[in-house]
Amino acid sequence: MSYFAKIKPIIATCFMVMLFGVTGMAAAQSADLLTEKKSFTLEHYTTVSGQNLKNVQLGYETYGTLNVAGTNAIFIAHYFSGTSHAAGKYQTSDKAAGYWDSIIGAGKAIDASKYFVISADSLANLNFKDLNVITTGPSSINPDTGKPYGLSFPIISFKDTVRVHKALLDQLGVKQLYAVAGASGGSVQAMEWATMYPDFVARVIHVIGPGFAMPAWSLALLEAWAAPITADPNWSHGDYYGKDEPLDGVAAAMKLVTLTARNWGWADATYGRKFAEEGKNPADALDHKFAIEAGLAKAGAARAVTTDANNFLYMVKANQMFNVEADIGKITAKILFIPAKSDLIFPPQYARAAYEKFKAMGKRGEYFELDGTGGHLDGLLNISQAADVMRKFLAE
Amino acid sequence: MSYFAKIKPIIATCFMVMLFGVTGMAAAQSADLLTEKKSFTLEHYTTVSGQNLKNVQLGYETYGTLNVAGTNAIFIAHYFSGTSHAAGKYQTSDKAAGYWDSIIGAGKAIDASKYFVISADSLANLNFKDLNVITTGPSSINPDTGKPYGLSFPIISFKDTVRVHKALLDQLGVKQLYAVAGASGGSVQAMEWATMYPDFVARVIHVIGPGFAMPAWSLALLEAWAAPITADPNWSHGDYYGKDEPLDGVAAAMKLVTLTARNWGWADATYGRKFAEEGKNPADALDHKFAIEAGLAKAGAARAVTTDANNFLYMVKANQMFNVEADIGKITAKILFIPAKSDLIFPPQYARAAYEKFKAMGKRGEYFELDGTGGHLDGLLNISQAADVMRKFLAE
Repeated sequence: MSYFAKIKPIIATCFMVMLFGVTGMAAAQSADLLTEKKSFTLEHYTTVSGQNLKNVQLGYETYGTLNVAGTNAIFIAHYFSGTSHAAGKYQTSDKAAGYWDSIIGAGKAIDASKYFVISADSLANLNFKDLNVITTGPSSINPDTGKPYGLSFPIISFKDTVRVHKALLDQLGVKQLYAVAGASGGSVQAMEWATMYPDFVARVIHVIGPGFAMPAWSLALLEAWAAPITADPNWSHGDYYGKDEPLDGVAAAMKLVTLTARNWGWADATYGRKFAEEGKNPADALDHKFAIEAGLAKAGAARAVTTDANNFLYMVKANQMFNVEADIGKITAKILFIPAKSDLIFPPQYARAAYEKFKAMGKRGEYFELDGTGGHLDGLLNISQAADVMRKFLAE
Repeated sequence: MSYFAKIKPIIATCFMVMLFGVTGMAAAQSADLLTEKKSFTLEHYTTVSGQNLKNVQLGYETYGTLNVAGTNAIFIAHYFSGTSHAAGKYQTSDKAAGYWDSIIGAGKAIDASKYFVISADSLANLNFKDLNVITTGPSSINPDTGKPYGLSFPIISFKDTVRVHKALLDQLGVKQLYAVAGASGGSVQAMEWATMYPDFVARVIHVIGPGFAMPAWSLALLEAWAAPITADPNWSHGDYYGKDEPLDGVAAAMKLVTLTARNWGWADATYGRKFAEEGKNPADALDHKFAIEAGLAKAGAARAVTTDANNFLYMVKANQMFNVEADIGKITAKILFIPAKSDLIFPPQYARAAYEKFKAMGKRGEYFELDGTGGHLDGLLNISQAADVMRKFLAE
């Protein structure tokens, strides 16, 4: 077990105490939505595959207030490499707000003055080393052994994450989900919600998602992302705890995630054929790079800092397994499909086909396509395009 | 130096002797175009970057007969992972013919009964370990040391390959290229031909190409392909000769090449969500795979058998450097642009933009888009769609 794994719960607790300390004061000084990370624990949880886990902990945060009837809640499920931090800041000095801050908050499309918005970390969240993330997965300590589970952790699907999130909502007093929304892997969880708890979920907002099942192309991309991790000798078949971790493999994986989450239009607009370093023509040496190569390498390395290798592999598996085609008939929620035109991970034709299938089954669906050349990430960075559509969808 | 590197020239020679032996007889028994691999040597060559190389050898093959005036020649430049084997078979028992056999041969779009068709291996050809490939690159023996060059081999651009190919054509008595054609990396070389030897080249057929420069997106994809090779500890900074070679890295690279050369439509049609092995549900274990994952892994491993790691890296660099934007004005050839609709390596908008720019400069261009969901590889596997357009383009 690494030193980090040992002390992480202590650091996280201290960090949250600090946050509690500043929240009130900072709120008085800024218009920013200030939020705090909280922790939820299930002492016993049995996975869909029938494995028993003890002490399952997940982090979450909320924006707004639950009404007395418990019926104004909107759950936000996060994407593959995301966390519960969908909106607001933990402290006013934070450089960036949560990833959907443009649409979540008082007066925004997902209006925190009307709705009680909850967002939670998934099981096996990638960002295991992020002090603001609380998750249970293969790199967590197995209470029975005092050591990380590693690959002995059971395979989990998004159905498991949704079941644990449902227990959290029950504890918070939520009686019905006014809506569940999510981007990418979060859109997948939103669909799981609608099929697993049809009476509980009134609306689904499925952003940059695959529809009702993971397409073969996306399956293969997920595997391609994971390949550098298992190829890194430091991965050691998942038993890297207390040893050198497969940091190079994780950085290479995150580099590939970053590239495939974009599009050629983004590459042209952001980099073109610029050199990484002025005066170092890539024609002159193998290690002279173009700016886009250096930019992606830097992004991959930066994102790898908080990313755990085994959690990454378990999230790949969870995404690959997504398939609710057989359960569409159970859905009573209305669904808003919002793909992005230039998305290469879940090309919009999949959401379009799912929308058409859903309508053909006599169900209530709406469709809005994000314009742009930013690729898959338009579902995060350009989501404000859909603000009015979302607002209207939630009002009806 | 590996045993293989030592004996390769001997094996190749034996192989060609065998071919010579069967060619005549087999031709009498089959309608297949039979071809033979030949070798061309330049005793001295100075690269564009000013480095001197001795004993530069490249393989080539020809279909048809050169006319007395030397003006009916069509040169076929090969793609990234391709070879000179564009058409025909070396022996009637070969399982597959050359990659463009559907459009090259007597009576076909590139009519070997009218034209003298030549195709040659590039410098630093990937398929260094293919006995039918003759190339000079970083893994070739440096005559001065008797050992492979490794990374001491000069960086080469496609301008170097084109210059060596021009010397080959001069030796063969070609006075003018009636046309130069190529797919992907071959389309890039065709553009280099048109700008380097404008008086020599009458027509260009630019299939699944990027237009006049490598876009940032494609640059980055090329780097992503190469990453598993340099990450493989066996690569040893390019000094793997006589040691364990970075075979895993090369296989991972070729797997990624195979995936990105395709498209989601191909993935759905070929694999869908089928399991790799019946009864082994991917939900049950991390190493239970979907069919598309297993299929790509198999393809990557198969293609890696003949692929040399350092040659791969040098070809990545050569492709990345492609940029003839400043030389378009020199081109006198007419150009036929043939992108593929579902291409994700060189999306058709690049060829379309190049075509429009070329026309706007008062030059002669034509445009035809291959339909299909096969991705980049439609430029090889579905090229027969363009047969009539090519035939007409060549007749005018």
